[in-house]
Order: sequence, then C-alpha cells, then structure tokens
Amino acid sequence: MTDYTDSQAVSRLSSGPRTFFRLPYRPVRELTENDGVDAVILGVPIDGATGYRSGARFGPEAVRSASTLARLGSRERGLVITDLLTVVDGGDVHIVPGYHLQTLELIEKSVDAVHGVGALPILVGGDHSLAIAELRAAAKKHGPLSLVQLDAHRDVLDDYFGVKHFHGTVYRRAAEEGLIDPTTSIQIGMRGSVPREDLADDGLGFTVIHSDEAIELGCRELGRIVRDKVGTNPVALTFDIDFVDPSCAPGTGTPEVGGPSSAFALRLLRELDLPDIRTVSLVEISPPYDTADITAHLGVAVIFEIMTLAAAARRTTTQQDGRLHAR
Amino acid sequence: MTDYTDSQAVSRLSSGPRTFFRLPYRPVRELTENDGVDAVILGVPIDGATGYRSGARFGPEAVRSASTLARLGSRERGLVITDLLTVVDGGDVHIVPGYHLQTLELIEKSVDAVHGVGALPILVGGDHSLAIAELRAAAKKHGPLSLVQLDAHRDVLDDYFGVKHFHGTVYRRAAEEGLIDPTTSIQIGMRGSVPREDLADDGLGFTVIHSDEAIELGCRELGRIVRDKVGTNPVALTFDIDFVDPSCAPGTGTPEVGGPSSAFALRLLRELDLPDIRTVSLVEISPPYDTADITAHLGVAVIFEIMTLAAAARRTTTQQDGRLHAR
Amino acid sequence: MTDYTDSQAVSRLSSGPRTFFRLPYRPVRELTENDGVDAVILGVPIDGATGYRSGARFGPEAVRSASTLARLGSRERGLVITDLLTVVDGGDVHIVPGYHLQTLELIEKSVDAVHGVGALPILVGGDHSLAIAELRAAAKKHGPLSLVQLDAHRDVLDDYFGVKHFHGTVYRRAAEEGLIDPTTSIQIGMRGSVPREDLADDGLGFTVIHSDEAIELGCRELGRIVRDKVGTNPVALTFDIDFVDPSCAPGTGTPEVGGPSSAFALRLLRELDLPDIRTVSLVEISPPYDTADITAHLGVAVIFEIMTLAAAARRTTTQQDGRLHAR
Amino acid sequence: MTDYTDSQAVSRLSSGPRTFFRLPYRPVRELTENDGVDAVILGVPIDGATGYRSGARFGPEAVRSASTLARLGSRERGLVITDLLTVVDGGDVHIVPGYHLQTLELIEKSVDAVHGVGALPILVGGDHSLAIAELRAAAKKHGPLSLVQLDAHRDVLDDYFGVKHFHGTVYRRAAEEGLIDPTTSIQIGMRGSVPREDLADDGLGFTVIHSDEAIELGCRELGRIVRDKVGTNPVALTFDIDFVDPSCAPGTGTPEVGGPSSAFALRLLRELDLPDIRTVSLVEISPPYDTADITAHLGVAVIFEIMTLAAAARRTTTQQDGRLHAR
Amino acid sequence: MTDYTDSQAVSRLSSGPRTFFRLPYRPVRELTENDGVDAVILGVPIDGATGYRSGARFGPEAVRSASTLARLGSRERGLVITDLLTVVDGGDVHIVPGYHLQTLELIEKSVDAVHGVGALPILVGGDHSLAIAELRAAAKKHGPLSLVQLDAHRDVLDDYFGVKHFHGTVYRRAAEEGLIDPTTSIQIGMRGSVPREDLADDGLGFTVIHSDEAIELGCRELGRIVRDKVGTNPVALTFDIDFVDPSCAPGTGTPEVGGPSSAFALRLLRELDLPDIRTVSLVEISPPYDTADITAHLGVAVIFEIMTLAAAARRTTTQQDGRLHAR
Amino acid sequence: MTDYTDSQAVSRLSSGPRTFFRLPYRPVRELTENDGVDAVILGVPIDGATGYRSGARFGPEAVRSASTLARLGSRERGLVITDLLTVVDGGDVHIVPGYHLQTLELIEKSVDAVHGVGALPILVGGDHSLAIAELRAAAKKHGPLSLVQLDAHRDVLDDYFGVKHFHGTVYRRAAEEGLIDPTTSIQIGMRGSVPREDLADDGLGFTVIHSDEAIELGCRELGRIVRDKVGTNPVALTFDIDFVDPSCAPGTGTPEVGGPSSAFALRLLRELDLPDIRTVSLVEISPPYDTADITAHLGVAVIFEIMTLAAAARRTTTQQDGRLHAR
Repeated sequence: MTDYTDSQAVSRLSSGPRTFFRLPYRPVRELTENDGVDAVILGVPIDGATGYRSGARFGPEAVRSASTLARLGSRERGLVITDLLTVVDGGDVHIVPGYHLQTLELIEKSVDAVHGVGALPILVGGDHSLAIAELRAAAKKHGPLSLVQLDAHRDVLDDYFGVKHFHGTVYRRAAEEGLIDPTTSIQIGMRGSVPREDLADDGLGFTVIHSDEAIELGCRELGRIVRDKVGTNPVALTFDIDFVDPSCAPGTGTPEVGGPSSAFALRLLRELDLPDIRTVSLVEISPPYDTADITAHLGVAVIFEIMTLAAAARRTTTQQDGRLHAR
Repeated sequence: MTDYTDSQAVSRLSSGPRTFFRLPYRPVRELTENDGVDAVILGVPIDGATGYRSGARFGPEAVRSASTLARLGSRERGLVITDLLTVVDGGDVHIVPGYHLQTLELIEKSVDAVHGVGALPILVGGDHSLAIAELRAAAKKHGPLSLVQLDAHRDVLDDYFGVKHFHGTVYRRAAEEGLIDPTTSIQIGMRGSVPREDLADDGLGFTVIHSDEAIELGCRELGRIVRDKVGTNPVALTFDIDFVDPSCAPGTGTPEVGGPSSAFALRLLRELDLPDIRTVSLVEISPPYDTADITAHLGVAVIFEIMTLAAAARRTTTQQDGRLHAR
Repeated sequence: MTDYTDSQAVSRLSSGPRTFFRLPYRPVRELTENDGVDAVILGVPIDGATGYRSGARFGPEAVRSASTLARLGSRERGLVITDLLTVVDGGDVHIVPGYHLQTLELIEKSVDAVHGVGALPILVGGDHSLAIAELRAAAKKHGPLSLVQLDAHRDVLDDYFGVKHFHGTVYRRAAEEGLIDPTTSIQIGMRGSVPREDLADDGLGFTVIHSDEAIELGCRELGRIVRDKVGTNPVALTFDIDFVDPSCAPGTGTPEVGGPSSAFALRLLRELDLPDIRTVSLVEISPPYDTADITAHLGVAVIFEIMTLAAAARRTTTQQDGRLHAR
Repeated sequence: MTDYTDSQAVSRLSSGPRTFFRLPYRPVRELTENDGVDAVILGVPIDGATGYRSGARFGPEAVRSASTLARLGSRERGLVITDLLTVVDGGDVHIVPGYHLQTLELIEKSVDAVHGVGALPILVGGDHSLAIAELRAAAKKHGPLSLVQLDAHRDVLDDYFGVKHFHGTVYRRAAEEGLIDPTTSIQIGMRGSVPREDLADDGLGFTVIHSDEAIELGCRELGRIVRDKVGTNPVALTFDIDFVDPSCAPGTGTPEVGGPSSAFALRLLRELDLPDIRTVSLVEISPPYDTADITAHLGVAVIFEIMTLAAAARRTTTQQDGRLHAR
Repeated sequence: MTDYTDSQAVSRLSSGPRTFFRLPYRPVRELTENDGVDAVILGVPIDGATGYRSGARFGPEAVRSASTLARLGSRERGLVITDLLTVVDGGDVHIVPGYHLQTLELIEKSVDAVHGVGALPILVGGDHSLAIAELRAAAKKHGPLSLVQLDAHRDVLDDYFGVKHFHGTVYRRAAEEGLIDPTTSIQIGMRGSVPREDLADDGLGFTVIHSDEAIELGCRELGRIVRDKVGTNPVALTFDIDFVDPSCAPGTGTPEVGGPSSAFALRLLRELDLPDIRTVSLVEISPPYDTADITAHLGVAVIFEIMTLAAAARRTTTQQDGRLHAR
Repeated sequence: MTDYTDSQAVSRLSSGPRTFFRLPYRPVRELTENDGVDAVILGVPIDGATGYRSGARFGPEAVRSASTLARLGSRERGLVITDLLTVVDGGDVHIVPGYHLQTLELIEKSVDAVHGVGALPILVGGDHSLAIAELRAAAKKHGPLSLVQLDAHRDVLDDYFGVKHFHGTVYRRAAEEGLIDPTTSIQIGMRGSVPREDLADDGLGFTVIHSDEAIELGCRELGRIVRDKVGTNPVALTFDIDFVDPSCAPGTGTPEVGGPSSAFALRLLRELDLPDIRTVSLVEISPPYDTADITAHLGVAVIFEIMTLAAAARRTTTQQDGRLHAR
C-alpha cells in the first residue's frame, strides 16, 4: 500500500481540507521572506459591488475544490510547476460585505503582504471590483503595469449606480490613478450589447480586440499581438471567466453569449509567453450558477496555465544565468 | 372565447410582464394620495450586507414570478383581498450594490413615499439588512412599533465584520434607535448553533420563543401569546423565510435546519389577528439556491396571508363604523 | 455468485430497461383474460391541458425509474404483493399532444382494455385531466363510483380558458356525467388561495376536508371518516402528488405550499382499508421540477401502498371463502 | 445620486416587473396606429403540440427576465436601436392549453393586430407550432414570404401522432397553404438521426444547408447565400434555439447535439442584412431544462441582433430618402 | 477593524481551506497522545459498496464546506463545545476505490489511531459500509458496544450481490463478530418496502422501532427508551442521513420517503443523554443529489448536537469529581 | 389514428419501458445464434474503480432514456440502420459494487456471450475500468486488436491507489496482456495537467494525438490518419465521453476542460470508415452531473454514428458479394 508522505501524493479523494492544488496552506498574514515563496494563491471572496448576479463570493472555495483534480505537470512545456516555483495557498482575504471601500483596503493590505515577500500574487475572486486594490498594490511595488485583460467587458465605465468603484469601472479608475499604462495594455474578448456611452471613443488609449475579431485572428496571432504590445513591461494579467462563452462558463455574474470556447482560451494562454508577470487575477466565477463545476474547473485550468507560464519564465531565467535548480 | 378585461382575469400563462399577484404596476415615485392605495408591495433587491450566501437580490423577481399562480380569495376568511383593499406593485427600490449605507437611505426614501400616501408598505427582500431602513420610515410616521419577527435568527448582534449595519444586527440597532419597543415585541423560531456572546442575556428585553418551544406550543397558543404581547400597538411584522425548515425554504442565505414546516408557518400567520399592522417585510429569499421555486411560492403564500390579515382588519373596521364597502 | 433467475432477483443497478417495480412488461393492447392479470400499471404521459407548469408527460418514466429501488414486501401488512396479485407494467397509453379530446379517447380505450380482462387499472400520469377518461371507463364497467381524492385542489371548476375539459374541471364533469356519486365521495387536502367563485357553495355535494383540518384530525380519524363515507361502494382512488407539501413533492405542476408531509400521506394510505377499489390514478408528477427524484420516489411509495391495500383486500377475500392461495 | 427618469436608465437590479429589454409595456389589444410603434415583441407561451420535452410555455418569461441584462446599443453597427425604432413589449398572446387549433386562432388574431398597426411582430415562443399562425397573419398582409429558418430540424413532416398541425409539420403546411415560397426560402442547420421518410426527397423545393455544411461554409459565405436566395422578398425569419448546440442551448425541447456554437449563430445573424423582414419568431426555449439561464440569454442576444438588423435597415431607408430622424 | 487571531474568529466567508467547523487540521497519522485531543472528526470518502446511488465519497467535503456556517455554542445546553473538548479535523482516511476489503483495512487503521490517543472518533462518510471497520476498531479498545442507530434501513442483510461486506450488511456482520451487543442495542426509523426475507424474524435480538412508531412516541419518550436500553454501556452512535425524510435530506443514496423531519431528528439527539459514547458515524450524505446543501447542513447540525452531547457529558464528569476546567 | 405495430412506430412519449433506441429487449443470457443478432447494446452500470466523481453507474439508464428521441435513419449515409443490422438491447451486465475484480469477471462473461453468437458488443458504461474485461473477451475471439481511443486521458497509468486494475490503468494492462497492439493503435484527444510520470516516454508504442493537435488537424485529416494506422485490423473502438469539452459533456467523472466540441466529435466519427470494428465501448457518462441530459444525448449520438458505421460496412460487404438484402 502506498505510503502517503506529502499532500500531492495523497489521492484526490482523500485530500482532507481542500487547498488550492493541494498545495501547502500558509495564511498570508504569516508569510515571511524566509519562506522562499514564489507565488501565493489568494482567495478574495467578494461579490457585493456587482450589477447583476452575485455568488462570486464562493469562487475561491469552488476553485479550491475543483483543483484537487489537477496535477502539476505540463505536457506542453515539459515541466512540473513545483520543481521551479514554490507556491502556497495564502488563504482568503478578509472582507466586509456591503462595504466595498473598506473591503478594497483589506484586499490591498493582503496583496501588499505578498509583494512584501517578493512573491507573485494570484488572486482568485470574487468579482472584478477587486482589481483596483490589486493594481494599487502592484503599482506601489512595480510602477505602472501593462494590462492584459481577457474579458467580455472592458470595465471602463465612469460610474454606475452613482459610485466610482464598482466591478464595471475598475480599469478606468486604474488608468486615472496611473496604475496601468493603457498604451501598452490590451483588452481582448469584448462583445454583446452596450450602453450608448460605449459607442463613442473613450479616449483612454487601450488596444481593444473584440471577440469576433479575436476568434478570427486565432490564438497564435493573438499571442504575437499581445507579446508585441506589452514587450518587457511588468504585466498585470487578468482573466474574467466571462471571456469564454457561457456554455463553457455558466457560473458567472454577467454572462455574455457568443464568446470563444475553453479550448480557445487555454490555447491562447499557452501562447502568452509573457516574461514579467507581476500580478494575476481570475475573477467572476459564481458557483451558484455553475453546472457540474465546469466553470470552476475552467478556472483551475486557467491558473494552471498561468503558473506554467511563470514556471517557464523562471526556467528561462535560471538557464540564462547558468543555474538550473528545481526548488 | 373569454374576453379578457383585466389582469386578474388573464390566465396565469399569458400574464405578460409579471407584477406581484398580477396587480397593477404603479412605481412608488409616481404614487399620490389620490390613488387611494391601501397597500404597496415593493421589491428591495439587495444582498450585499450578508454573512454567507448571497442571491437575495433576485428575491423580488422570484416572488413576482411565483405570484402569477396565486388567486386573491381566502377560503379561511371568506373574502377577496381586492374587494377590501387596493393593492399595487410599487416596483423596486433603487440600490447601490456594495454601498450599504447609501442603499439604506434609498430604501428609507421609498418607504417614506408609501407611508406618505397612507398605504401599508409590504417589502419583499432582499436580505434582512433592509429592516433598519424600513423601521426608520415606519417609526417616523407611527412612533415606536411592536415587532413580530418570525425568523431562525434574532439579528441582534452588536457588530459583525467590524460594522454596525448588517443583516445580523438590525433589531439591536432598531431598539437602540427607539424604532421598536422590545418589551412589546416578540421573536419566534430561533434555533441552531450560536456564538459565545449569544449564550448570555443581551438585556434588550425581547420576548424570545425558540423553535422547539414554538412547535410544542402549537399555532393557536402561539397566536394568543403574540396577540397578548403586542396588544393594540402598531406592529412591524417581519417574516424571514429561514423561519421555516430548509426543506421548505432551501432558497435562503443562512439556512438553519430543524425548523417548522410551511404548513405550521402559514397556519400561524392565520392565527395572528393583529389589528394594526403598519409595516411588513418578507426577507432572505435567495432564488439561486431555490429548487422548483418552492421558496418563492412560500413567500407568495406568506404575503397572501398577510394581505388577508390586513383585509380582514379593514372589514372589521368598516363593519364597526356601519359601512361595508368593497373597494 | 448468485444465479439471477427473475427480474426481482436482479439487482437494482442491473435492471436493464426499467419497468414499474421491475414487474413484467405486457403492453395493454396484448392483454388477454387468460393472462390472469389482477392489476395493470399504465403510464399516461400527458401534460397539455394544464394551467401552469408542464412536464408531467415524463411522470411515467420517472416513476418507472425510481421504482427500481422498491421491494414488494410490506412490513406493516405482512405480505408480499406478488404472492397475492399478478401485476404487470402495461406500457404507456398513446396520446396526441396538443389535442386533448382525442387524447382522452385514446386513454379511455386503453383503460377499457384493462377492465376488459378484469384487472385493476393503476394509472400513472401525466396531469389530472386524464381522470375523466379514467372514470368513463370505470363507470362503464362498475357504475357510478365513490371518489376518494387526495389533492390540494378540488378540480371542480366549470371551465377554464373557455373549455370544459381541463385538469381543473375533471370532477365537476365526472359528477355531471354521473360517473361518480358526490354524496359518497370525499376530497381531502385542499388549501391555498382561490378564485372568487370558489368562495360560494358549488352545490355538487362532495364532502371536503381542507388541509389544515386533515392535519388536525390525524391519519387514523381521517381513515375512519373515509371508510364511513364510501362504505362498500366501488371506489375510484386518486392521488394528486400536490396533496403533499412541495418540500416533499417539488416536482409538480401547481405546487401549493402548506400541505402535509410524505409521512402523513403514506400513513393515511395505510389507514384506508377500502374493500372495493376499482380504479386508481397517481397524477401530476412533473420530473423537470423534481429534485433528486424525491417526488418520483414518493409516487412509487404511493403506488406501493395502494398495491398493498389491494393485496390485503384480496387476502381477506380469499380467506373468507376458505381458500388462501398466493398467485 | 442618479435621477431615474426612464426604464432604460433604471438599473438592471431594480427593474420592477420585467418587460422585454425593459421596454414600455403596451398590450397588443390596446395598440393603435397612432402609437407609432415599429416593432412589437410578443410572448407566445405554448408548449402543447410538442413531441418530446415541454416547458417552452415559460419561454417568454425567461427571455423577459434575461433581457434586463441587455443594453440597446450595437457596437458592430454603431447604433442604438431605440434611436431608430419604437419597440414595445406587447404582452402575451392568450392561449388554450391542450387545444392547439383554438390556440392557433388566438395567436393569429394577436399577430394580425400587430400587422394592423404596421409594426413588425417579433414572436417569442413557445414551441415552433406557433409558426403556422404567424405565417397566416404575415401572408394576409404581405403575400407569400421567403422563409429564412435557422433550426436543427426542417419541421416538414406530413403528420405526426395522426394530426396535421404540430411543431414538426409547420413548414410543410405553410408551403401547402401558400404562405411561404419554398423556392426563395432557405433552411439552415439540420442534423441528427432522421426517420425513414426524411431520406427521400420531399419535393417541396426548399434550399437546405445541413449543419456540418453550414459550419464549413462559415458565416460570411452563408450570409451571402441567404441574401442571394431571398433577394428583396418580404422575409419570415425564424430562429429555433435548437439551431445551436445543446451545450449553448440546453433549455430546449428536442435537443440535437453536434450543432454550431452561439458565437457562430450570432455572427451569422450579423451577416444577414435582409432588407425586408416582415415577421420574426424565436422559438423552443424551454426554461425548465435551462442552466444558469444561458439559453434565455442566447435568446435575448438573438432578438437583439434581429432588432439591430431592422434598425439598420430603417437607417438605410431614412438615409436614402434624405431624412435621418431618430425616433 | 477586527483583529482576527484564530480560525473561529475568522468570518465564515474568509475561512480559507475549509476544515470541519473551522477547527484546527491535524492529520490523524500525526496525532500523538500529547496533543490532548478529545475528539477527531475524520472524513471517510467512500461510496463503492452501495446498492443504488453513489456520490457519498464527497460527503466529507460537503460537510466541511457547510460547517463553516456553524458556531460552537449551544443555547440548549449553555456551553461552548471547545471550552470542554479539544476537537480537530483529522483529515480523510485513505481509500482504494473499487476494492472494499482493502478500504476497510485502511479505515480501521485510521480509527485505531484515534482510539490510540484516547480520543473519540467522529466519522463522516461516505456510505454505511464503513461501519464494520469503525466497530472493529472501537470494540478492540472498548469491548462490545451498544448500538444506537438512527436509520431508515436496518442494514442486517446476510449478503447482497453475493458478498458479505456491503452497506446493507454491516450490523449483521458486527453482531456475528461480537463487536456490538444486539440485546442492548436499538435501531430507530425503519420504513419502506422490504424484500421477502425481512418479513421474518431475523433472530438477531435488536430492538427495532419503526418510523411511524417513532413519530408517534415522540422525542422525549424515545429518548427515555434509548437511555433505558443502553444504560451505562459504551455506545456506538450512528446516524444515517436517510433516517430523515428525503425532503430534508435529498442528498443520499437510498432515499426512503415518509420519514421524520429534521426538527424531529435534532430534537431526538438532544434527548439522548448518553453517558459513554465511544464511536460516532454520520453516513450516506451524497452531495451530487443534494439541493442547496440542505443535506450537508443537516449533517453539520447532527455532528454539532453529538459534540454537545459529548461536551455535556464531559462537563458532568468534571463537575462530579469537583473540577470544572474548560479545555 | 395511427396503428402502432412496432416499437419504432410508437411515439417517443409513449415508449413504455425505455430500451436503447426503442429496440427489442433481449437479455444477453437468453441470446442464441439463431436469433441472427448483429449487434447487442449492453449496459455496464459500474463506477466503483474511479478516482474522482462517481455516478457512471446510471450511464446505461440515461442513455436508454435519451435514446427514445433518436431515429434510426442516417441522412449522411443514406441508410436506415435496422435495414442492414439486427440490433437489440441486451440488458445490463450484473455487477458487484465495491468488488472490482469480481465485477470484471461478470462483465467478461456477458461480453463473451455476445461474441458467442457472432454479434458486435456495444458496451455502454459505466466507467472506463470495464475496458479490460471488454478487451479480454474480444481478444479471445479475434486476437489482438487495434485500439482507436477518443479520450481526454490515455489511461495508461501503472497503478493507482496501489492497485493494478482501475479506470486509469486499463490500456497499459491491455497492452501488457497482449489484448491490443499499440503499434497499430491510436489515442486521440489527450489534454490537461498531468502527473510527473506522464512527462516521460512510457515506451508502450501508442500513437498519441493531443487535443490541440487534433483540433488543428481537423476531422478529415484525423480520419485519414486513423484509417491508415489501423488498416484492416480488427478494431476496438472506445469513446470516453470526456473526449469532448465539459461544456458539451458536463456529466462525466473526470472533466477536462479545453476539449473539442460535440460537432467535432460526431464529424470525426463520420470520417472513421473502419472496416472491421469488433468491440465498442462508450464510457464515463455520469448522469448526476449532467445538465438537461445533454451528455446522455451526446452518448446516444455517438452510438448512433457507430451503428451507422457498422451498417455501412455491412452494406459494402453485402454489395461486394453481390447481395443486398435489408434485414
């Protein structure tokens, strides 16, 4: 009978409390630089500042649960993530339901802590309103970032319901606050009916590739366009699960039919060889609307692909400086 | 072939846009005293300030939808509600998701408008955090009220997540603000595990009847106790759908197993011949967690019973002053 | 390893095509008197003539599926049904969706065939509109019957949508056509809001016991009342699944909250020692609205109890005439 | 705080009773020519005459509900629909469940009323059996139409269950009655197993493009073929939601796996610049089988695209005659 | 802002990886006597040896998830569990899906480890087939136990599918192996149709109280009967979730309609002041069949009540020996 | 009114007990060579030896149910299956839940019986662990086969949970036992994260085409590659439903996002003109996780396509020897 000595060896069925990818649990408030952690997956269980369906507050739990099925080896890149990176489950950010501005402060503080130990934060929402806190923390550390946003909506409304901070306004705010540089940023996947104000040019300077155009370009060409756009800038990579069609991601808050498939989305991520990702977010998974956890499993695959990106970048770096050491 | 001349005659299947009980739609902001409206059913689509499951923002829609199945005659009381009362669908209160305090102001303003035309507000939530706004509006008009609360939880926490206004704190706040008089108020149906602070006496002065005790007393005796407790005071009647067992109301935010059945709850409402109800709320129906709309249908039945209570009280009054006129 | 020699011995998981209670399949059109069949369970997959939710057309399939879990022994009565009765699955009645009057003729013809071989028809709907066809066939053979109806609704409307044959009009039609004798009939379980015309006496002569009253009387007393009412008349026993609360039977077309539990319903059936049941129907199971098949399983238990009633009556009869032979 | 002055400005969450696209509600029986209405969205809540799953009777409600999320601006066409067209929610057609022929008369009468005021009817079913009534009304006004049908099934059976009017026979009937001209009509998307009679040529003269062929041709080429086929004829455009794969539209009555994606379907609609659409139907959305309302949201997007087609055609016309006036 | 210093203080929404009741996680293989642990909640994710629905393998996860909503204070007993007992989440037992006998060995070994440190094992299944391993471990330590079984089925079949170890045979096996003493054991809640062999006396000596009888006796009298039957013997307490009606526990493998309510079940547990509980199991929660997690929440409440029983027994003991020390 | 003379003529709604494709039911143990049966569809209701979700034990029932919607004519191939082949529903294989090795023996015995009468076995699982029994039976009759496997996973692990026979190890075992010839076998559709051991070459010799590569190659080219690989060898064709994306097949045990669509899968099957298929399996449909039965309907379409392949091969053969006789 197998002797189980670490959590990855444990079978998927007997995982006990479910951490992200059955990785070690290290609450973010206990992290120190001595831990040598490269990336922290952090739950952000919020859904208050959303304009339609709620439920995203259970996104972190659903992704943790589905991730027990995942392995850590990538056939496409020929690596095992944990050979190259030390990744932990950082627990969940504390929040104050119904009090969005206070919640943003709590999120920012937790993400600061991740940057503080030199690790990459991988935020698992929760709704997209977390992005402004995420970017404040990232820009404090790394300066203005290039945004790579896969999403059905641009989230650049000026206000909504009469307030400025909301899941549909984050990237206008981020541009205004100088957290991101729109001229080296790209938004991919937009579609659907829009309010009148979206018909005019917003003057923000983002490169926008609508969903139909993205599908026609194909993953390889899109990957090239993205890499050209961001160059070697530090990157904020955000994946709103509604980027894909609701058939592949029914569990989301503002479903937008007519999007690309999961196969397209994952293939696209594998084309994004971004050398300097500094903050990652996966948002808008709303488990009460999911079916058979397929949205959660897609979320897991998205994080998996992003972690392999980061691991491959690390491998490249360490190879370049002559040292290849698995951690 | 039938000639359809009014919305009630229209078949349930061909109701068109679904109003509460297929009643006329009159947005609350357009109401005037000349309309002669006796009661306004008002949607309050909020779920932000909740500690566990969200989704109650779609409560008003689910109740409207299920109410197309209802009729307006009561066999038990021998009356047709609309013979005695003019009731309208007042639309939905405007809200600001993620900004609870601003939302409370918007709710209060809408409920003020209902009181302003002399009508009874029947609020359909949304989560229970609406109650503080509801009671501020009611007390402004009618002075401190006696609370009759059917609920699995007392909602008298002092704070939660570090804030004072939340769905678990409303009745402590209401008592502190003098909106309700705990000594003539009663809370029925409490059960389940509790935090340590709930083991001590809270000194607030409410009469509390736990769920097991309520089931043992039975509906008749409970009805008598309630009537004795509130006397002829103006009453705030609130029904949290989690008062009943989750088998009867799965679609709710903080389900508490071990509660009474729907049959018990409706029978109890029929025993509550409260002479002076001034504000009503039905809260915590969370449609994403409902099954076959049974929670929504229960909500409809609860409002139906409360409307018959109000209609019967109206009948009594008009009979006493020698006039019986159906409206 | 067990040798499987008959369908009952076969495990529930390996039942192959699912017949009612894993009984032999004998299409009703092939039945002859020589088969010695005592009862035929017959699917009636209709849902057209219904006023709210459809879906009952899949009731027969759901009951067949759930019945693979059932056994044929009754602990309460100390018998195995198939020792006393030969029961078969008669297949499904043919229907014409959207053409209710033609469908009624097809149903009646199939039920005639069952009576023709001297067997008891047990109809599994499908919606309640089948009852008029069921009763025409039964009355042709046995004369006017006493109706025992467990149901949340009386189904005695005069017309609906401008037509006379509908699931809400069947028992008025049956009384008018002389198929049942209202003065020896009883309707149990009615509840909920009603249209104005239901507030007046309908002059039909049925004994009606509303749901609250039924719960207060209890199963034993109710059983006595029913037996007194019908005496030794031939009985039509009909069970509308909405007799029980929607928590126990969410999968139905016109759910009526506030009803009795499944435990109450089954106990009541065990109290109904009706000596001369001549036709049985179980109606209004709508699988698309069911959860975890609990409504279907309740339907199975209802048929099981009715079959044990019939088996017990057969045992009594055979004992009385000095012969006890298991069939 | 925003001042809400019209229903479109109202937030999606506080929409009150849900009309199609939050447009004004004007019951079709109250419409007059003076209203200046250009298009009427009309619910047809039927599902009786269907051969497999029912539930489509709740299609209109589900589409109304999902449409609260939609906006009225089209990025692809650079227009806001309501700048060019006056569109209203016309309520639901009255029906007689279980009596298909009477129901067809009621539908035809309602659609006549829409044509009577010179508006475009957009029917939201309900099952496809409504089409014969739709086309009788349209042909009365406009003469024989060219049919553009996106559907997994041709619906040209001769009879079924022994009757002539059924959801699978409508386009044979329409051809026989001269309501449509098959030689200028096109059916796209057919697939799946077929009965023997479908293997032979039916001699009706329709152009048929099966699903695999459609996918291979691609949206642009398909659009060209359709435009060539119908020319400037008056067009009946019908979209059976089962045209798309069940992964994108699980909520339907006769799902046919292996179809195109939602992205394909919407893109195709954007390629159909039909100059003279005279009647539109969206059918076979069956909400009880839907998941997370994705089928309803697809239905909303389909109507949105068709409304933008009509708006763009209007824009072209008004530009041609020198006047551009938003209505 | 609140300073969160322990997992219980952490909000329900930000719990991070979900342990049972947000208690500390201590894998059973790492436990030592020095830990001073009083009780270990242990997941047993099995569902192979079941005769109908599977899915119980996800029972431990569902109970962990739902338990984040629970608190640790009991109003009825006036205590906080963790003041009196040190309880931990012991993780999940390792299993070999499809290999039941090997799995039983792995379960027994884990439970041995719990007994080895003097703690009470609380097993969360998984299906009931785990019981034989549970009882072998318990009897090894404490000798033959008195069984208190709340269940719809007796689980005393001799074999099934030709094998001896199965979820329906465990208590016959346990009696044969001398692990339990039937003459001081009691089985409560049995109901439903049975196979022929269950009609005869099995000669095992258990006291059996069927479901109808249990409901008639009521919780107080039942509690007295149980306490009389087991006296001061060491007790194995097992709760099969199908003890309650499927309306309250749809998420289970062999649902049996007609059972008691959740309110009844929890009240009964509060009447069971058993002085010497030595092993506990909660079994047959099958999450894929659950609705809105109500079955999981019932499971949480069952464990909560059993933990308060154990805590109250501890309080009594420590009071008797003159020392009251909270741990 | 139609005269119904055979099961195919019977309407889909009145099918009675549901057999596969409404074909005749002939339990495999009763088959004789005289029956002239060409193919037997056989249910294998197992799910024990699976590593994640169970539920596949109800796969055969779900496929039978969904198949009532199917017809037997193929437009693409211009044939009616039953004109060329006699196909029956062979019932379900007996199994011993929790005892995988005994279950494998029972499966093999049943499949032997099918080969014994010279018919093609079409196994409907159930999980993929059945394959080793399937191949033992096939190889006994036909010698080593070429495997054509459409699947997201290769199922060539060496062991798992410490055992050798499991749903993830079957094709390594089959290769080791010489039941298949890897050098003429092909595995298509693999994707997702993998354990470390899958990064190295396994030395088994299979041709493997990963999912992204398959999508890029397209169906025609893939069809050509497959036909080239297997030549005229006897073929074992296996379709694991997780080959397609979870959006198209949510009801499965180990969903792997990012796969091809249903349209792709069915088109691919139509390109596989394999001349000598000797055993077929469709596995891993898990109904509890399905939505609106779309996975089951996909399974039905897969079997339909495979039956048309076999029918077309038969037609070719009979044409070649100068005789074309429909059976």
